[in-house]
Amino acid sequence: MGFFTKDIHDMNDLFVAGLKDIYYVETAIVDALPDMISMATAKELKSALQAHLEETKNQVRRVEQVFEMHGVRAETVDSPAIDGILEEANVVASDIDDKDVLDAALIAAAQKVEHYEITSYGTLIAWAKGLGRDDCASVLTQNLDEEKAADAKLTALAEEGVNRMAA
Amino acid sequence: MGFFTKDIHDMNDLFVAGLKDIYYVETAIVDALPDMISMATAKELKSALQAHLEETKNQVRRVEQVFEMHGVRAETVDSPAIDGILEEANVVASDIDDKDVLDAALIAAAQKVEHYEITSYGTLIAWAKGLGRDDCASVLTQNLDEEKAADAKLTALAEEGVNRMAA
Repeated sequence: MGFFTKDIHDMNDLFVAGLKDIYYVETAIVDALPDMISMATAKELKSALQAHLEETKNQVRRVEQVFEMHGVRAETVDSPAIDGILEEANVVASDIDDKDVLDAALIAAAQKVEHYEITSYGTLIAWAKGLGRDDCASVLTQNLDEEKAADAKLTALAEEGVNRMAA
Repeated sequence: MGFFTKDIHDMNDLFVAGLKDIYYVETAIVDALPDMISMATAKELKSALQAHLEETKNQVRRVEQVFEMHGVRAETVDSPAIDGILEEANVVASDIDDKDVLDAALIAAAQKVEHYEITSYGTLIAWAKGLGRDDCASVLTQNLDEEKAADAKLTALAEEGVNRMAA
């Protein structure tokens, strides 16, 4: 995607642009998660984020597989959206001086990332099906299911943390 | 929130910081939706976005109500996250030269916004309950339910559009 170059003409172009976006997003998350893991205190949160880092590396490979299936070279485009979500996570985290509160903020930030991915994959799957690429949709659905499971795990950790702090 | 001022000490501070974020987000959406409405072509999409604009104005008032219930002055903080999501929507839209494809991209962008709000309200509701503010949680749940309904409506419109273009 360039600026005002009008190079998206059809749904195939839009699908490829979306793939490039999620490819950037997944690689940005692989880069960002180690810092989040080192900031987290609760053992269950650290291990959930660590598990998700391994999962995310595999998701990057699945996105590369979809590029290949679709006959397009794998490349990223800048995503101001995920950059903004990750920047906000850092700003909030740098403002917190209590470890339990920081854990709660890290969970919230990670869930914002998950939801960005959940809606992105939902969209890409619908577009892939519209293009007759059920094979690509099927691979993308594996990533979507993992993001939904990661989000549900984070919700459970958030509720445990909130209840512990309230007790 | 400042930069590195460590002014979030407890869950109440974090809750208020989150309220300020969603207050900024809702007002940014009120500002952004008219442009999306004018770019949209399909009548059902235009009217869904128009209805959501009216809904969003009401959501702003509910967030102000929660500030008041919680005894805190309503104010915003910058949200690089929603700024990034909205910026990305504009970049992608400016790259598209077909009206049906633009509609599909607008739906995807609007769903990214909805998902940012869905996860934000989910988090705020859990934190409010942990603070014993079930009254605030209840008001925030009204916004959450509307965001989920708006997202489901957009999913239905996306699928209709994809099927129409594929036909």
